[in-house]
Amino acid sequence: MSRIYFDHAATTRTDPRVVEAMLPYLGEVYGNPSSVHDFGQEARAAVEIARKKVADFIGARPEEIVFTSSGTESCNFAIKGLAAAAQKKGNHIVASKVEHHAVLHSLKKLEKQGFQVTYVPVDKHGLVSPADVAAAIQPGTIMISVMHANNEVGTIQPVEEISKIAKEKQVVFHTDAVATVGQIPVDVNKLGVDMLSLAGHQFYGPKGIGALYIRRGVRITPFIDGGIQEDGKRAGTENVPAIVGLGRAVEVAQEDMGPAAEKMKRLRDTMEAGVMKNVEYVRMNGHPEKRLPGHLSICAQYVEGESMVLFLNMEGIAASSGSTCSSKALKASHVLTAMGVPADVAQGSLLFTLGRENNEEEVKRFSEAFPPIVKRLREMSPLYADMMKKKQG
Amino acid sequence: MSRIYFDHAATTRTDPRVVEAMLPYLGEVYGNPSSVHDFGQEARAAVEIARKKVADFIGARPEEIVFTSSGTESCNFAIKGLAAAAQKKGNHIVASKVEHHAVLHSLKKLEKQGFQVTYVPVDKHGLVSPADVAAAIQPGTIMISVMHANNEVGTIQPVEEISKIAKEKQVVFHTDAVATVGQIPVDVNKLGVDMLSLAGHQFYGPKGIGALYIRRGVRITPFIDGGIQEDGKRAGTENVPAIVGLGRAVEVAQEDMGPAAEKMKRLRDTMEAGVMKNVEYVRMNGHPEKRLPGHLSICAQYVEGESMVLFLNMEGIAASSGSTCSSKALKASHVLTAMGVPADVAQGSLLFTLGRENNEEEVKRFSEAFPPIVKRLREMSPLYADMMKKKQG
Repeated sequence: MSRIYFDHAATTRTDPRVVEAMLPYLGEVYGNPSSVHDFGQEARAAVEIARKKVADFIGARPEEIVFTSSGTESCNFAIKGLAAAAQKKGNHIVASKVEHHAVLHSLKKLEKQGFQVTYVPVDKHGLVSPADVAAAIQPGTIMISVMHANNEVGTIQPVEEISKIAKEKQVVFHTDAVATVGQIPVDVNKLGVDMLSLAGHQFYGPKGIGALYIRRGVRITPFIDGGIQEDGKRAGTENVPAIVGLGRAVEVAQEDMGPAAEKMKRLRDTMEAGVMKNVEYVRMNGHPEKRLPGHLSICAQYVEGESMVLFLNMEGIAASSGSTCSSKALKASHVLTAMGVPADVAQGSLLFTLGRENNEEEVKRFSEAFPPIVKRLREMSPLYADMMKKKQG
Repeated sequence: MSRIYFDHAATTRTDPRVVEAMLPYLGEVYGNPSSVHDFGQEARAAVEIARKKVADFIGARPEEIVFTSSGTESCNFAIKGLAAAAQKKGNHIVASKVEHHAVLHSLKKLEKQGFQVTYVPVDKHGLVSPADVAAAIQPGTIMISVMHANNEVGTIQPVEEISKIAKEKQVVFHTDAVATVGQIPVDVNKLGVDMLSLAGHQFYGPKGIGALYIRRGVRITPFIDGGIQEDGKRAGTENVPAIVGLGRAVEVAQEDMGPAAEKMKRLRDTMEAGVMKNVEYVRMNGHPEKRLPGHLSICAQYVEGESMVLFLNMEGIAASSGSTCSSKALKASHVLTAMGVPADVAQGSLLFTLGRENNEEEVKRFSEAFPPIVKRLREMSPLYADMMKKKQG
């Protein structure tokens, strides 16, 4: 029985076309891009070609792209780097409550250093209100960070509207687009953002590579200090094979993204309809329309998300109980909590994220396997028994 | 005519055995190690096996190894992370003047935040005196950072003696071992260090992967904030293929390092003797004995290092004019300056770093090509003409 992977928000398989592009740089083209000799200059050329591809893909200029080791590093760099560079202007930052921990924990560290952060709420669908962002801005506000789409529930934020406010108030706007780049069209000018974080492994690129877009004119202090790589913005020998892989991954995404999104949405909608029809006491999380095409986040009451993940795994189906980056922590997701989901309901959260290679057969297998799993787990649940007793009583 | 690579301090070619080990993790084993399902747990197992290999290689425990994206990140993490964690104890740090920019520029940033750094000098061979380190320690000293061997001149520092002082004074001791791990034996207990930075691409491992050894009991604040990866010490999805590659690279080094070092030393000594015999006005940099086996650093007077690199490149020979990480900056190397090399002499610095695949034929070709290059460049040099005139006059 072949295994089913419904956890593309955790990571994706590196596309064979991407691996093929990387191989020469794991082989004979091994120079250090900072070296002036031919070995180095061959590597340098490959890095700059990749930079152009990544820039083109998001509507940026090549010199506005800095390669990093991950989406998390990009977010750290954006948040901490801008704060350090702009601290003379002010010490206030606005962010949503549903940001990824890469942003939230960077902000926590800044708070310890004396920065003030206003965390704007979200509605029941996980949507940030641009009016709330506008209201949170103060004279000393130096940055807004609102993610493009949420990794846990897939809700797509009104980034274009927020960027208008940011521009008007002359506040630098960073968006964590790790969940969207390569999934849906992303253009930094259309979005109107000043900084944007992305990660290769989220869209069939390699692990260990990310990028930060920094709009020309935005001053940001380096996060990793040392050599003069990346135009002095990010020290450390360039991860040439992964950079080349990222360059190829955006080309592949450019080609495949559109049809894949349509297919994923169709499959996801089938899955969602099946779950809602065949499983009782289930809540759908995320926005009904403004949502990533492959995301299906649910909460099944009277059952633990982690248990469902383990039982699904025994059926060869890979899913997640929420953000993979914090899945070891068994406390309720900060995203669901911000959306007003009660803690006991949030315990039963389950996230399916489809990829472009999933198919109808897999959805069918899932739809057959899932209801019995929930049933079985509920039969073991004292809370469920209580509820049923009350209902019958 | 095959090309000759004498720039192994800039980077090395990833060993084919390492690439082979990585390939499955660029292919079907693509899970996120933080995922609880089988896809994730397969990746997790690979990461933990690699961690054990890296730990074993340097005499550490697996839980004392944190994977990073580079040696530079490791140094940033060690320096900034320890400073943040220990700032209540004191704000003084001791480092050598010849540290890599990854350490020096991290220290510069800390100085801006109010930390005090004492930079201890080196002698004409680039050696730090343990007595100077001892004398620099104050009641508020929280950390010593002295590199294991210098990347530019190859001088191996008396780390074991410095660690005795650090222990006695109860100061945390970090060593940047990026230039030594995989080249010469490195054991954290024998060295007596509390933190140690290393990088994969320096010894035939992949680019984009480093590690920081943190001795059990040493408290250090995370540098990259976000998810709970690396036991909460370093956020960001693990670069599984590169981690597996690093694990394989230490195995390969364990096997090849000894014989390679002997061979490199022999070839290097031949090169050195040839240069000293056939080229006038040349100074050898670095310690005559306490030096990495593959390092040959020289200063040729009346000629620019960069020009020699370019002329050598035209002969198919790759060398460097110093640290690759700062080779674009045409100012004199801080290492040579600290060693008392006059600025005009330091301009003519040239670094050859041999690897285990270099051979006698290549050394012969170099020995024939190099003297005419220096001769030709000096013929174009007004400084050389002046000097000759004075000498003859």
